Amino acid sequence: MTVSPYQQLEQEWRRLHAFRGALSLLRWDTAVMMPRGSADVRGEQLAALETEHHALLTAPKVTRLLERAQANVQQLEDWQVANLREMRRQRDHAIATPVSLVSRLIKAAARAEGMWAEARRENNFALFAPHLEEVVKLVRDKAALLGQALNLPPYDALVDEFSPGIATADIDTIFKTLARRLPPMIRATLESQQQESVLPITGKFAASKQRALTVEIMKAVGFPFERGRLDESEHPFTEGVAGDIRVTTRFDTSEPFNGLLGALHETGHALYDLGMPVTWRDQPVGRDRGMTLEESQSLLLEMIVGRSRPFVRYLQPLLLKHLAVSGPEWEPDNIYRRLNRVHRGLIRVDADEMSYSLHIMHRYELEKQLLSGQLIVKELPDAWNAGMEQRFGRRPENFAEGCLQDVHWALGSFGYFPSYALGIVIAAQFWESLRSQVPELEAQLGVGDFSGLATWLREHVHGLGAKVSVKELIKQASGHPLGPNALLRYLENKYQSAEA
Amino acid sequence: MTVSPYQQLEQEWRRLHAFRGALSLLRWDTAVMMPRGSADVRGEQLAALETEHHALLTAPKVTRLLERAQANVQQLEDWQVANLREMRRQRDHAIATPVSLVSRLIKAAARAEGMWAEARRENNFALFAPHLEEVVKLVRDKAALLGQALNLPPYDALVDEFSPGIATADIDTIFKTLARRLPPMIRATLESQQQESVLPITGKFAASKQRALTVEIMKAVGFPFERGRLDESEHPFTEGVAGDIRVTTRFDTSEPFNGLLGALHETGHALYDLGMPVTWRDQPVGRDRGMTLEESQSLLLEMIVGRSRPFVRYLQPLLLKHLAVSGPEWEPDNIYRRLNRVHRGLIRVDADEMSYSLHIMHRYELEKQLLSGQLIVKELPDAWNAGMEQRFGRRPENFAEGCLQDVHWALGSFGYFPSYALGIVIAAQFWESLRSQVPELEAQLGVGDFSGLATWLREHVHGLGAKVSVKELIKQASGHPLGPNALLRYLENKYQSAEA
Repeated sequence: MTVSPYQQLEQEWRRLHAFRGALSLLRWDTAVMMPRGSADVRGEQLAALETEHHALLTAPKVTRLLERAQANVQQLEDWQVANLREMRRQRDHAIATPVSLVSRLIKAAARAEGMWAEARRENNFALFAPHLEEVVKLVRDKAALLGQALNLPPYDALVDEFSPGIATADIDTIFKTLARRLPPMIRATLESQQQESVLPITGKFAASKQRALTVEIMKAVGFPFERGRLDESEHPFTEGVAGDIRVTTRFDTSEPFNGLLGALHETGHALYDLGMPVTWRDQPVGRDRGMTLEESQSLLLEMIVGRSRPFVRYLQPLLLKHLAVSGPEWEPDNIYRRLNRVHRGLIRVDADEMSYSLHIMHRYELEKQLLSGQLIVKELPDAWNAGMEQRFGRRPENFAEGCLQDVHWALGSFGYFPSYALGIVIAAQFWESLRSQVPELEAQLGVGDFSGLATWLREHVHGLGAKVSVKELIKQASGHPLGPNALLRYLENKYQSAEA
Repeated sequence: MTVSPYQQLEQEWRRLHAFRGALSLLRWDTAVMMPRGSADVRGEQLAALETEHHALLTAPKVTRLLERAQANVQQLEDWQVANLREMRRQRDHAIATPVSLVSRLIKAAARAEGMWAEARRENNFALFAPHLEEVVKLVRDKAALLGQALNLPPYDALVDEFSPGIATADIDTIFKTLARRLPPMIRATLESQQQESVLPITGKFAASKQRALTVEIMKAVGFPFERGRLDESEHPFTEGVAGDIRVTTRFDTSEPFNGLLGALHETGHALYDLGMPVTWRDQPVGRDRGMTLEESQSLLLEMIVGRSRPFVRYLQPLLLKHLAVSGPEWEPDNIYRRLNRVHRGLIRVDADEMSYSLHIMHRYELEKQLLSGQLIVKELPDAWNAGMEQRFGRRPENFAEGCLQDVHWALGSFGYFPSYALGIVIAAQFWESLRSQVPELEAQLGVGDFSGLATWLREHVHGLGAKVSVKELIKQASGHPLGPNALLRYLENKYQSAEA
């Protein structure tokens, strides 16, 4: 029995998938379990595995097989054709960046991440600055090489990793509209919300109780605990692979909602990973269609579903049960108002859904400037604070609520931030379709039945894996091209209609 | 600057070391953290990494470099010469077994391990039997190939992996003496111990309290919690690498000593790993000298130190403090007698130090028969029970206290068991030297000062890594060749002298 070049490629990618799974577990462990002093050892392990993964992906054998499979592409089925295209895409990205650069970036990022945490704790940007400089320098090299290979401007080449097929021009168009429309909407909402009273929620809410509440809701949403875990970490994240998916959140004993909403965000990612076509699980076409769509799934669950009236109806009795609380402040109306309070906060992850994109635009501008050299690392704090003052009318009082609040840059994840803003834009587009195509949706959510939501998402988003482009997927699923109008309609309807 | 072949080899092994660390973490996670349903995913990851590790080790490039380095061996220092020898040894072992066999064995072992646990829970050997058969078949193939390559009989070739340089003939000689001398010693001790009364210890001892006790003692012994972890798992084990070392134990709330002694056993392994020469940490010569010496370190701490009078003097006030207990049953004398009670138990890991080797001899005979085909898997339970009846005068009442008590065979670890018995033999040889060369040893142990012990072990055992052979190391450290006499003297002195 001869094995075709295409089949040999599938075999190669099965191995790469196992490598990626191992790498993902190492990262999970780093954030959740690893002893503090062991970062150096872990850095070596991650670098060795990433290097080997890179070497396998860029081996001459793979290039030869890709060429031979391409020559016989007419014999392949459409999923296989798409798979071959995604294999090529991964190889092209990998081959553009030499392994020595990949390895140096991983090690620099591991050091920078450690120092970021320390600088944050000690409120001392200078501790972090030289490490960020090193990372920026290496990312700049990577962007230049990737840009040459993909025939894209450097920053666009980085964006392409996370948001395939989306260019700076697309982002600029969307951000321009949002930058014009959101600020007056925020002002109006702040004014109208001043009229309504929100009863404060006080008390201590043990992490174990919040955990039980979160687990019950995650189960209802469809998270498979027999093949997944929920843990706690400094920042919520999702790692692992379908078959062993691991999400984290962070419980704050003085605030009972953030831990749950963080877990819902990560559950959105997990459902995406779990909803991909099972037969393609270990192949490129059976993976997510980039981080932009990933964030659309997490933000849909966290921001739109998790703060909706029907969800609050479902949530409220569970809060009373698990947290053993009672009183008028725990009435559904009060919870709903609390969850949807618009505010000029300084912290991205605590932002309401209306202000969220403004936080992203701020980072988007700064990271482009850092990368182009227009802004130097030393001046980042001042630039950050000036931008926040201009957008939110407030300046951070320390680095933890300023330019050290996110870990992304330390990790070398430049070009990632736009995924969040695009994610919420796309989530609103999907939500609009969901509401019109699943008439029983709100009634279901109100009783903790997520089947209508999950079925629609599986059919229109998850089940497609990486078969079609981001733009095409959005168009097919929502009936409209990628654009900010659904988000603006959603926000207007939610915050400014008579029923708001 | 040219890099010599030898230096290139060091570079290759640095990478292999990182791979081994990643594999070790995956195994740790499998036993401590992994969701139950995810064994298939993990199996693929382990197989992919093992396969790649094997491919790197057996690459033609490595063989070429080994030959070129060997040609210039006179330019190397003695540690480098030893390192080169160990590199060759690893390559020879790897190259003897084709990667397809390695990969099949890993996957079969993953399946067998899962079914072993289930068969044990359900007391149903038939569930496990076909999986064990598959593993035995593959191990047999491996042993034949290894034997051919190393010019050793098949079972000796397996032993050589764990106990380099030790042959079945060595083991047989030692076991013959022990089989003759131990049974009468056990009978005499059982008789004399019948005269003394041991007050029973009852009550519930929360795992959290046992953990706090164990952590305090592990810290005193020298376990670095800033670069290591203690967790719980079904069976105690040590994984990780120096720099991120992870031990587990299992706390039984109705018994306050087993969890601690299990942790001490693993701490013995950890100290060995931590005591190797730091500059050679990522090289073969900077690793342990095989599992026999590993077990000598773990059993020295668990069996000999952990059940000695001075250690009990140190332990007793800690027991009172952490477990909040009191009464005559907690007097040092009673604890000492309890810990050193000789008994005809059926469970290896609960065995006293006098009977321990008999449990091993039992497994040693059976596994040789399984491998040669003299015994078939289906008949293992009967053969097991008959052997136990003959050696201990009792038959197991279920598989969990019979032939399903150990996981080793499920994992394909044939040839490992002798390491335990040799380990205790060697531990007794080291203990004899320790007591004569470190006169303050007992006084130190009595106050929880482990520095004399650790210094001696580091100098005579840990610090040598894999520089000399097992037999040479034992001779240098103890002044005697490998043999059972020190163990017999130790047991006689402890259990049959006037002061026993």
